[in-house]
Amino acid sequence: MPEFLHLTPPKEALQKLLTNLEVRNPRSEILETRHALGRVTGEDIITSHPLPEFPRSTVDGYAVNAQDTFGCSESLPGYLTLVGEVIMGKKPSILLTPGSCTLIHTGGMLPDGANAVIMLEDTQTVQSRKERNSYSQEVEIRHAVTEGENVLQVGEDVEKGEIVIRAGTRVRPVEIGGCMALGIVNMRVAIKPIIGIISTGDEIIHPEKKPRIGQVRDINSYSLAALIDSAGGNPIIYGVVSDNLEQLKSAAKKAISECDAIVITAGSSASSRDTTAEAIAHLGEPGVLVHGINIRPGKPTILSVCTGKAVIGLPGNPVSALVIASLFVVPLIEYLLGLRLTHPHSTVLAKLNINVSSQAGREDWIAVKILPISRNHQDSSRNQAEEEINWIAEPIFSKSNLIFSLVKSDGLICIPLERTGISAGEIVEVSII
Amino acid sequence: MPEFLHLTPPKEALQKLLTNLEVRNPRSEILETRHALGRVTGEDIITSHPLPEFPRSTVDGYAVNAQDTFGCSESLPGYLTLVGEVIMGKKPSILLTPGSCTLIHTGGMLPDGANAVIMLEDTQTVQSRKERNSYSQEVEIRHAVTEGENVLQVGEDVEKGEIVIRAGTRVRPVEIGGCMALGIVNMRVAIKPIIGIISTGDEIIHPEKKPRIGQVRDINSYSLAALIDSAGGNPIIYGVVSDNLEQLKSAAKKAISECDAIVITAGSSASSRDTTAEAIAHLGEPGVLVHGINIRPGKPTILSVCTGKAVIGLPGNPVSALVIASLFVVPLIEYLLGLRLTHPHSTVLAKLNINVSSQAGREDWIAVKILPISRNHQDSSRNQAEEEINWIAEPIFSKSNLIFSLVKSDGLICIPLERTGISAGEIVEVSII
Repeated sequence: MPEFLHLTPPKEALQKLLTNLEVRNPRSEILETRHALGRVTGEDIITSHPLPEFPRSTVDGYAVNAQDTFGCSESLPGYLTLVGEVIMGKKPSILLTPGSCTLIHTGGMLPDGANAVIMLEDTQTVQSRKERNSYSQEVEIRHAVTEGENVLQVGEDVEKGEIVIRAGTRVRPVEIGGCMALGIVNMRVAIKPIIGIISTGDEIIHPEKKPRIGQVRDINSYSLAALIDSAGGNPIIYGVVSDNLEQLKSAAKKAISECDAIVITAGSSASSRDTTAEAIAHLGEPGVLVHGINIRPGKPTILSVCTGKAVIGLPGNPVSALVIASLFVVPLIEYLLGLRLTHPHSTVLAKLNINVSSQAGREDWIAVKILPISRNHQDSSRNQAEEEINWIAEPIFSKSNLIFSLVKSDGLICIPLERTGISAGEIVEVSII
Repeated sequence: MPEFLHLTPPKEALQKLLTNLEVRNPRSEILETRHALGRVTGEDIITSHPLPEFPRSTVDGYAVNAQDTFGCSESLPGYLTLVGEVIMGKKPSILLTPGSCTLIHTGGMLPDGANAVIMLEDTQTVQSRKERNSYSQEVEIRHAVTEGENVLQVGEDVEKGEIVIRAGTRVRPVEIGGCMALGIVNMRVAIKPIIGIISTGDEIIHPEKKPRIGQVRDINSYSLAALIDSAGGNPIIYGVVSDNLEQLKSAAKKAISECDAIVITAGSSASSRDTTAEAIAHLGEPGVLVHGINIRPGKPTILSVCTGKAVIGLPGNPVSALVIASLFVVPLIEYLLGLRLTHPHSTVLAKLNINVSSQAGREDWIAVKILPISRNHQDSSRNQAEEEINWIAEPIFSKSNLIFSLVKSDGLICIPLERTGISAGEIVEVSII
């Protein structure tokens, strides 16, 4: 019975789960870079050449030798002879001699002899000077440039041999772009861990079926599969198993042999919760590590490792199952992927609009709706950090964590273990769901 | 030349683009609900029956008639005769008569005659009372319950005929779960808008090719495709077109006939930027709406609508292209999908660690890295909103918006039009990239 569970604090519980998994490099596969969005890199990406590979102009203007512009100003401009144009995509054939310049476009390669670019807006072209029988064009220089000005030097973006993307990085559009710049059109990424999902409960039926009175449709298999998918895992739904030890044992045995980890959502009755723990005990050592967590919703959660694979027993309540999965299954997947988290999961800061109470020694997760603050521009009493708070968090209370209470919500807030509640007006961090 | 552009403020520019598109319902398709993660609903989802469909217990305990427990307390318990157990998934056959109770599990259906559930921990079973020739079991009731206590009434989650998910909602795991609860295993979602991508530039080559000196690989086609994909669009890469009006016109004509919108990343030279605008002018009315935006990076951006379809001209610089695409192409895709934004895009609040200057009248977007604040627990001078700021934003400056400067960054901060900079220590909102 849950009352007799030994409750573990949430952080410690996750720690116990992850430290009992074998430390290993995630398995990886080669993928076309353009299809790698959202995947996690399986090795460091090292440049084989510098970027840029040749000195490039950062502006539209004239490639010059900086010395030729010294002392030039609007009141006292200098003049350089225009000796051609740098053609995009080609190595300039011109060797720039003192007193001359070439037209250059953004991204164009500097000709030999040039070491700076003067912006178009700091110049003016003048058709002048007769030389032998043709007129040569002159450029009026109204501004001095220093050596290297408006030029990207070779290797200024990245040097040869530099680690530009570390193993364990989630691939964003910008990593795809960076790899393309280097000609890395295939990349090694972690294989998505396969997470098996078993739902248990004599009252649970397949969602396509029409429930008889007393029956309810399977929610958890599908909401958990979607969550696992969005975290970078590969979910396999094993369907609904009845509250029967032998059936659950054989379903779990099959699933664990085919998957990297499995998730069992418990039936609702107290006895079926014990069934889950007992079935897990048969899957291998060390077995159940945590049974009961100081958290609401989700107290009867089971965390275990069986012969190197994680087995997580989630509560049957669909809201509890989703909340606990986001706190334990998502980090598990990230661990299996080898993800190095370099920045925070993004959240929204909001002002809580009513008092919310909790029990000290238990972590509470409360569903909230986020609403814009209607701002009184006269209010100068708020400090600068508060200025940035543009949202109100409005808790959605419901009797028993109903699925549509979560559908109506934008995110979850956490009341930490040591607190007995949060007062109206306090700033809370909303984890977007 | 960009100096002669008429610059439009960013918000006004986006508004101009969207209001010139024909207002219409997004095209939609039917999809299996379990594959709808991240898609946008194409119609309101309305319940055909209430949830729950029968009164359910929210706890493990005994189903009772509340009246039978009135006055019960630990010091003066009452006693009820146990007349059976509610079997999960079945309609109970028992009719509860005064003075009796049934064992019930969480989620079990209340038998007729019961109107409340007393929690297991508020009871104790006692084997007692000899009745005729068999012993009947008694339950000691140590707590009074009121009518409806620990019971989910019919329709308490959702009523029949209620709109539970509005058209234009991005489908999260919880929406998938909610639909399954209702037996909605197929749903109508907006068809992903097809966004064509054309890269231009004589110096740009396919990333698989080895650049000759003066050439660079195509970054934008792939980083933009990934961004479009993550925003819910369907990108088509049309490849690289040289800086030639006729070729660009014919490529753009083909793309716009096959896509819902197109994006052209301009060549780097000033003349090729004009080429893009000229090619767009040939695609249809009303044509170019905005050419030049008060923003950095991305000033020479072109926004246009040609015969009902958006055509966006992005700068060729890969960082500018990504920033501008996230500010204009992503909202365009969301508009085409019919997405109703109900909550903010999630961001991270952080404390800026150095002064950053900007130009008044221009919106600046600066790449930043996010680092955890090492907290001095003695510091009680900080106010409560500041307590919640756990991150430092460290700007990544580089000469010319190099692609790997963005790879090294976690997000972007915005210096609004009207400000000339942000001081060290100010709280900034970081948009995670």
